[in-house]
Amino acid sequence: MPDPAAPGPSAEPRLRGIVPPLVTPFAADGGLDLASFEANLESYAREDLGGYVVLGSNGEAVFLEEDEKLALIRTTRRRAGTRLLLVGTGLESTRATIAFTRKAADEGADAALVVTPHYYKSRMTADALQRHFEAVADASSVPIYLYSIPSFTGLAWPPGLAGALAAHPRIVGMKESAGDLGLIGRIVASVPPSFPVICGSAPVMYPALCVGAAAGILAVADCAPGPAAALYAAFRAGDHAEARRLQEALTPLAVAVTSTHGIAGLKMAMDLAGRRGGAVRSPLSPLPPAAREELRGLLARAEAACRR
Amino acid sequence: MPDPAAPGPSAEPRLRGIVPPLVTPFAADGGLDLASFEANLESYAREDLGGYVVLGSNGEAVFLEEDEKLALIRTTRRRAGTRLLLVGTGLESTRATIAFTRKAADEGADAALVVTPHYYKSRMTADALQRHFEAVADASSVPIYLYSIPSFTGLAWPPGLAGALAAHPRIVGMKESAGDLGLIGRIVASVPPSFPVICGSAPVMYPALCVGAAAGILAVADCAPGPAAALYAAFRAGDHAEARRLQEALTPLAVAVTSTHGIAGLKMAMDLAGRRGGAVRSPLSPLPPAAREELRGLLARAEAACRR
Amino acid sequence: MPDPAAPGPSAEPRLRGIVPPLVTPFAADGGLDLASFEANLESYAREDLGGYVVLGSNGEAVFLEEDEKLALIRTTRRRAGTRLLLVGTGLESTRATIAFTRKAADEGADAALVVTPHYYKSRMTADALQRHFEAVADASSVPIYLYSIPSFTGLAWPPGLAGALAAHPRIVGMKESAGDLGLIGRIVASVPPSFPVICGSAPVMYPALCVGAAAGILAVADCAPGPAAALYAAFRAGDHAEARRLQEALTPLAVAVTSTHGIAGLKMAMDLAGRRGGAVRSPLSPLPPAAREELRGLLARAEAACRR
Amino acid sequence: MPDPAAPGPSAEPRLRGIVPPLVTPFAADGGLDLASFEANLESYAREDLGGYVVLGSNGEAVFLEEDEKLALIRTTRRRAGTRLLLVGTGLESTRATIAFTRKAADEGADAALVVTPHYYKSRMTADALQRHFEAVADASSVPIYLYSIPSFTGLAWPPGLAGALAAHPRIVGMKESAGDLGLIGRIVASVPPSFPVICGSAPVMYPALCVGAAAGILAVADCAPGPAAALYAAFRAGDHAEARRLQEALTPLAVAVTSTHGIAGLKMAMDLAGRRGGAVRSPLSPLPPAAREELRGLLARAEAACRR
Repeated sequence: MPDPAAPGPSAEPRLRGIVPPLVTPFAADGGLDLASFEANLESYAREDLGGYVVLGSNGEAVFLEEDEKLALIRTTRRRAGTRLLLVGTGLESTRATIAFTRKAADEGADAALVVTPHYYKSRMTADALQRHFEAVADASSVPIYLYSIPSFTGLAWPPGLAGALAAHPRIVGMKESAGDLGLIGRIVASVPPSFPVICGSAPVMYPALCVGAAAGILAVADCAPGPAAALYAAFRAGDHAEARRLQEALTPLAVAVTSTHGIAGLKMAMDLAGRRGGAVRSPLSPLPPAAREELRGLLARAEAACRR
Repeated sequence: MPDPAAPGPSAEPRLRGIVPPLVTPFAADGGLDLASFEANLESYAREDLGGYVVLGSNGEAVFLEEDEKLALIRTTRRRAGTRLLLVGTGLESTRATIAFTRKAADEGADAALVVTPHYYKSRMTADALQRHFEAVADASSVPIYLYSIPSFTGLAWPPGLAGALAAHPRIVGMKESAGDLGLIGRIVASVPPSFPVICGSAPVMYPALCVGAAAGILAVADCAPGPAAALYAAFRAGDHAEARRLQEALTPLAVAVTSTHGIAGLKMAMDLAGRRGGAVRSPLSPLPPAAREELRGLLARAEAACRR
Repeated sequence: MPDPAAPGPSAEPRLRGIVPPLVTPFAADGGLDLASFEANLESYAREDLGGYVVLGSNGEAVFLEEDEKLALIRTTRRRAGTRLLLVGTGLESTRATIAFTRKAADEGADAALVVTPHYYKSRMTADALQRHFEAVADASSVPIYLYSIPSFTGLAWPPGLAGALAAHPRIVGMKESAGDLGLIGRIVASVPPSFPVICGSAPVMYPALCVGAAAGILAVADCAPGPAAALYAAFRAGDHAEARRLQEALTPLAVAVTSTHGIAGLKMAMDLAGRRGGAVRSPLSPLPPAAREELRGLLARAEAACRR
Repeated sequence: MPDPAAPGPSAEPRLRGIVPPLVTPFAADGGLDLASFEANLESYAREDLGGYVVLGSNGEAVFLEEDEKLALIRTTRRRAGTRLLLVGTGLESTRATIAFTRKAADEGADAALVVTPHYYKSRMTADALQRHFEAVADASSVPIYLYSIPSFTGLAWPPGLAGALAAHPRIVGMKESAGDLGLIGRIVASVPPSFPVICGSAPVMYPALCVGAAAGILAVADCAPGPAAALYAAFRAGDHAEARRLQEALTPLAVAVTSTHGIAGLKMAMDLAGRRGGAVRSPLSPLPPAAREELRGLLARAEAACRR
């Protein structure tokens, strides 16, 4: 186990900007399609992005075998250059999370994004979660980002927990995917300025930046990285009017590729945008063909706003 | 019934700025304490506020008899001067809401704030709500503001409904009290610029302004109108850094007088701030004395941030 | 205020059997249709029922003015004979509930059915509810039945509360309308045998009787009192197989006139069964005509099972 | 893939009676403690039980590695004799569920208990779930039992789904763990008599039997198999009064080892009852020592009721 008293990852680059949570393309036989995955990475290399997330919720991580997961990490590492590589390593048990976080680090992860365990919901008190995250961080050689996504886990984030965990030298940031601005504001107020709070909900990206979010891990950035990055850049340049305008142009697409159509919609939008999404794994269902025209229109609107 | 084709209330002043939802002080015998109510109005007259709400959720409207309600409207009207007076008139049935909206208009209400009916939750579809609000607006001589507050009603606001209702000439604005920035952004994008979207959740007041909210009806403005108004003024002056700073100073107090301690906490904070809150009606419960010091500290922090 | 130490209502008849929560028919002008209401009572007089509830949720009590409520109580009292008359008297404030409970008693109510206050949901702790119910019972001259209906109130019943309140001499029973058999069983185990626990969910009437419920207040008994009473009688006769058979025949109709179609469905089913339901008040919506055939078939099935 | 048209498992023994969902004991180093697991099986061999479940929610299946899971199946098979062995094989993806169901069958599972996938909650429509379960059943050589447990999955069971899936020759039963008697009744009414509906909630075991449940998979049977089996036997003997009496004696213990204290409570109760529970895996937390006396009392009460 690494020494918790050893110098923390203060020298590590902190996450900033817009980060796509990479989708996982599948081949016709249902296995990984690494060639398509690499093609996507190649296309993202030309965009103004702050890093990559592999094995997030949008990457269908819960559907992947461990060897598939390791192959995706390796491939991303090889293609990521100096960009920060975050890997989703959270599993239900503390010991399995520790073991897989180590494997991810061995494959080149810069940091681990650790979702709240959630199967035994009523037991996942603030204390139980704190012990879990501290045990994972104690045992990890790479920095840990906390990750809360109630729409999938059914678990609300305890308001004071991020502030308590930020004291750990290897817990360095948090992704909040409920899009709850009141919560994001309270978390920002409870952690040091060097602890990035990351917005995981594209429809509130601009107001999240206003209250102190440092970055966005946004599904919509998989299919429309340009407009998402433009929104971020406008905010950084202090141009609130432009950031708000881009937010309004991006929101309908963002809602479509998450709440309305889910990952199947996100992958279809990637196909329409010249990237490689493809099919989802079952029990996720393919979209009806009618969704294609809707998504094409929303993509066009988002891209047009960006090129203005 | 007023003619829906007649000139709408376009000449009416639109709601802007920070508006306190007035609390209802009670006398020792449990009846209305109108003298204390007037004293509060006198103190608010010296603050930079955009109007008043009477008979809102924080006014314990669900506990009041009709004669008490009419007395509160009359008193506010007499003290409000030219400030906009919004009156909460929503009841469960359409006919009772229409009848009381007319009485409120007769007593001097400038506009009615109509909460979603909610007892028969599963029946309150978007269609049923649309018919209800249109019937109330058809029958009203004063403009109607829509009002959604899921924490009390248990009813989520249907995303497309505000856009549909904004076409009615007498439906002129909406108060959203869930603090859901994604929803506020989508409502703003779906209504004309002249239709104010009002934030009802103080912890997200600043980001709500960023995405286009025009005003805030905030319980915390009952006890700390100065800091709330200062936040609004900073935003209008384009000073985002100052608005965010004031938001961070105001949020802990705002959480304390709503989520944590409810109306009893709000009334205690008013007492501590030199206004008149007093007791709540049962079945609301008085606060334990220990809350007093907590609230005193939070008030001091909010006021200090404002005076800086 | 009555003396709480005075002899309790132990001489009062306890609720037993099946009780219809009476619907409120409206005339073409939207006002009360008392003639239809009386016609329904006349038809129920020929059925094997344990009493009447007036001003319950299915009676659209939240849509009625006080004078309408008093007229309904008076009319029921005149027609009820010796049958037990329960009146829904619960309002949001303790003082209003006390005042209306007294008026209901003056009009002839045998007992009051007091729903949990619920607008300020997060404040309605077990302690706050206990104080409310005790204050109402202290001030009432008639016995009090507790009433929990989470589908409308959004409030879960605190498990230990019924046992604590059963110690009050004028709190004599409870209606549980969530259909939660685990909760019903725990309440039965926590109160004296003389304290009837009443099932308010027809699809679980038979198993509720199995675990100790004494009675049922069932919307479906408004349109199909015969089958509901037959189920109860079979259980009392120890014929579990027959009770279960009748339950299975009744459940589809019961679901249709509550979860699926609501009060509008219940009133249409009453019309189809030769009683007088008629229209609902807005914002409740009328049913599409297609529902008529569905309800006709379900009624026929329930009645056929009963006649076998 | 097995031929779906081939003779179904109609010759298979159907599940009846009370079935303990086996807990997974861990050694001091955190690994499996198979010796303790076998000791528990040896003790259960002397009880009147209808079979075993391995790898259920109470078995901490979400915390186990595949090799640990296979070892538990093998061990149970060796000790189960002719008792029916159900194995929890549901995973998030259809392909992983199919693969593991085959491995479980190879190790001797008599049937697979397949929980609803649930991470992507909003996508798990009735259609998506139907396709998933049918694909798993098509590919399985052993019969499939459906499994719904909303407290862990956050997913409600679609009312009509069991009836639709019962048409598949290898889908032979369903476990309902919400304890929703209305749902259990509707499922029973929608499936053939040969399709067992299994109650997964001990506090409603007796009323579930009344409405047609065929069996119970009950955590409380891990620590108090005698009283649970006695309840079942009393019901089968037609002695409703005795079944209800045993239910009332069992419920407080059942609530304590599930809702109140979770698996840590269940394991502590097993230790107190002379079986081997031991520690839970993190992030589940150990119980405070004070729980021991509470559990000891509840166990004694349940056992006393049984011996009467």
